[in-house]
This record gives sequence, C-alpha cells and structure tokens, in this order.
Amino acid sequence: MADGRLFIGTKMYSSWSLRGWLAVHLAGLDVEEVVIPLAGGSTAAVKEATPSGTVPYLEHRGAKVWESLAIVEYCAEFAPHLWPADRAARAWARSVAAEMHAGFRPLRQNMPMTILNTRAGEGATPEAMADVARIDAIWSQALEASGGPFLFGAEMGAADVMYAPVVCRFLTWRPAVSAAAQGYMQAVRAHPLMQRWYAEAAAEPAEWRLPQYEAPKP
Amino acid sequence: MADGRLFIGTKMYSSWSLRGWLAVHLAGLDVEEVVIPLAGGSTAAVKEATPSGTVPYLEHRGAKVWESLAIVEYCAEFAPHLWPADRAARAWARSVAAEMHAGFRPLRQNMPMTILNTRAGEGATPEAMADVARIDAIWSQALEASGGPFLFGAEMGAADVMYAPVVCRFLTWRPAVSAAAQGYMQAVRAHPLMQRWYAEAAAEPAEWRLPQYEAPKP
Repeated sequence: MADGRLFIGTKMYSSWSLRGWLAVHLAGLDVEEVVIPLAGGSTAAVKEATPSGTVPYLEHRGAKVWESLAIVEYCAEFAPHLWPADRAARAWARSVAAEMHAGFRPLRQNMPMTILNTRAGEGATPEAMADVARIDAIWSQALEASGGPFLFGAEMGAADVMYAPVVCRFLTWRPAVSAAAQGYMQAVRAHPLMQRWYAEAAAEPAEWRLPQYEAPKP
Repeated sequence: MADGRLFIGTKMYSSWSLRGWLAVHLAGLDVEEVVIPLAGGSTAAVKEATPSGTVPYLEHRGAKVWESLAIVEYCAEFAPHLWPADRAARAWARSVAAEMHAGFRPLRQNMPMTILNTRAGEGATPEAMADVARIDAIWSQALEASGGPFLFGAEMGAADVMYAPVVCRFLTWRPAVSAAAQGYMQAVRAHPLMQRWYAEAAAEPAEWRLPQYEAPKP
C-alpha cells in the first residue's frame, strides 16, 4: 500500500501538475497517482478532492500539501539534494523558483502548456516575450555559474522542476531563445521522467482534449 | 559592520517588502536597511539595485535573495522555528504561504496596501471578496487547529509573515470577515514589529506619497 496520493490534472495541459509529479518522483515518495481531467477552471471533482480547489495536491503520511512550490519544498525535506548544497546557491535557486511560482503571467496566458502540439511563432506578444527574455536570463546565468546541464548542476533539482513546464511551453510555441537556453531545454526534455510524462500524455484519452488548447488561434 | 543589506520599498505601500522585513527581523539577521521609494512599477533605482527589478531584495553573507517567499525560506534556515516543528503542520504552513505568494490577484488589485489610510467598504468587488472568503477560511482553519493567536501557534511565523500585508489591507479596506479572522488581525497588528513598521511608515516623507494610493476612488 502506498504512503499517499498525488492528485494531478491532464498531463497534456496541466503545467503545475507536472511540477508536483516531478518533485514526488525525484524524491522517491511512494504515492498513488490520481488524474482528474481538466475542464477549464476548477472543476467540481477538483474542489471535492483538494483543500484549495487546485492540482497538484499531495497527501502523504498524514500531511496535506498543495501549491506546486510547497510540494517541492515538502519533497526536498525527504530529498535535500533537490536544492543546492551551498547556502548561497540554494538561496539563488529558491529565488528563481519563487519568481516562477508567482510571476510570468503574460507567458502563461499567451503560451499555455499543450505538449502534444507545435505552434511555432504564435503567442509572442510583447509582454510574453519580455517574460521569455527574463527566463532566458535566469537560465543562462544559473547554467553559466553551475556548468549545467541543469540549472544548478549535474542533476535535475527543485529549480528545474519549477521551470519544467516552461520548457514544455517553449517546445510548443518556439519563442527565440539563446543557445544556452536551447541546450537546457534539450537536457530537460531528455530526462527520463520528462520522457515518461510526454509518453503518458500522448496516451491520454481523446475525450480529455480541450478545444481551447487544441484549436489553432484565429 | 552589518552582514548585508535589505532593500525595501516605501513602508506605506510596499506589501511584499513588509514580508522580507518581518522575516529578516524575526530571524535576527544583522542587515542594513535600504529604502527605495516606490513610484509605480519597477523604477530605475530598483532595477539597478536588484537582480529581478523587485523589492524586497536581501544580500547576506554572499547570498543574494529575492522574492518574499525565498527570503522567508532563507531566514528560516537561520531560524527554523519560523516554520512549525511538526512535519504535517509545516507542510500546511508552506501550502498556505505558497498560495498567498502566487494568488489572490483580485484582492491585491482592488485593495492595495496603503496602511495610513482607511477606506472601509471600498474595493469590495465580487472577485476580491471571493479572495477574502478564501483567506478567511485559511486563517480560521489554521487558528482552530493551532489554538492561535498566530496561524500556527503562539509566535509569529513564516505563514504569518506571508499574510501580514493582507492584514494591513483588511485594516484599511475593512471587508467583512469572521470573528476568528478579526482576532487574528488584532494579534498581527499588535506585534511589536508591526507596531514599528506602522510607526516608521507614518514617519516617511510626504513626498513619497503616491496619488494612486492616497486619492479617494472616483
């Protein structure tokens, strides 16, 4: 019997779910996965299953954890290597993780996660591209300091978990980014857990597809 | 000589700065305070002083930390009592802290922090009041479980730090809240650090006042 349950949304679309799922798997928590198909906004099923009406939501050994960043911190208590060992690097990683958690609204609105599609060149509003430029700078500075291939070193960590859905967005919408950012996106996409997520997304039922994420823009 | 510097905005208005300032003081970090007056949006002075163009921003013993929640986590490494000692309670506290960090946009837009003013009954749009109801529920559930007077027990902690600006907003805009929430707001307002913040805000130069936060709504 598992130690708990992880509630997530549709893998094709649920960017925040991807974070919780990656964190739980990187930390090796033994939890049952419960997928609640998204339907635009918080559904009755999500509201009934979770304290805040949002996914991801983790129940684990008596703890109830929601919000992707809180799930990441919870998992890092079991797997401290998810954050850098050095105090200053850890502060840096937490800063960029928190900046992602609260920010980049234009990017999220104009380039939603829809990982089975390619929409190269669309969604590139000036506000979204300002977000892209800031994210490129965050990635490039961290990669230069750590040597990569992940933001803070050789292994996928908490900051990578927070930015993984952005990698998915960029792979769909293809905004122009630096060579450093492109290399980082390849490293994230090639991670075994990301390979698995994409494969499981591709296997989701056709009736879970939502027109607003599938239809070409007018 | 201090161990670093904390950059904050105008105390009358800068809700996120209040969080960083409380965390640093609760953890007892020895940092010099640098106030950069707000002027609507990210000013050239803030962009020059900080990596992300935002306050609060902490430099401490070689670490550079931005985003209020990352500063709170950084401070909690020096003062672990800022989070609850119990694993499940700590997960709860981190969940509500992260929910505050990323959410409640209608509340923030309609009831900005302007702590020297009273605007009772204004700003109460349906969306803002939905945020108020969710926050009231978060507070009430935590207070009931912990016994109060702070969210997770007898002392002001990290979750309280994240919600302190909301208390300031509620004291200005006076939305209807439960008795539990009112008691909590009084406990936060009476904390010595909050008393000090309000006094220092009242002593700020008149030329730092911004019309958009001072003028009555049309």
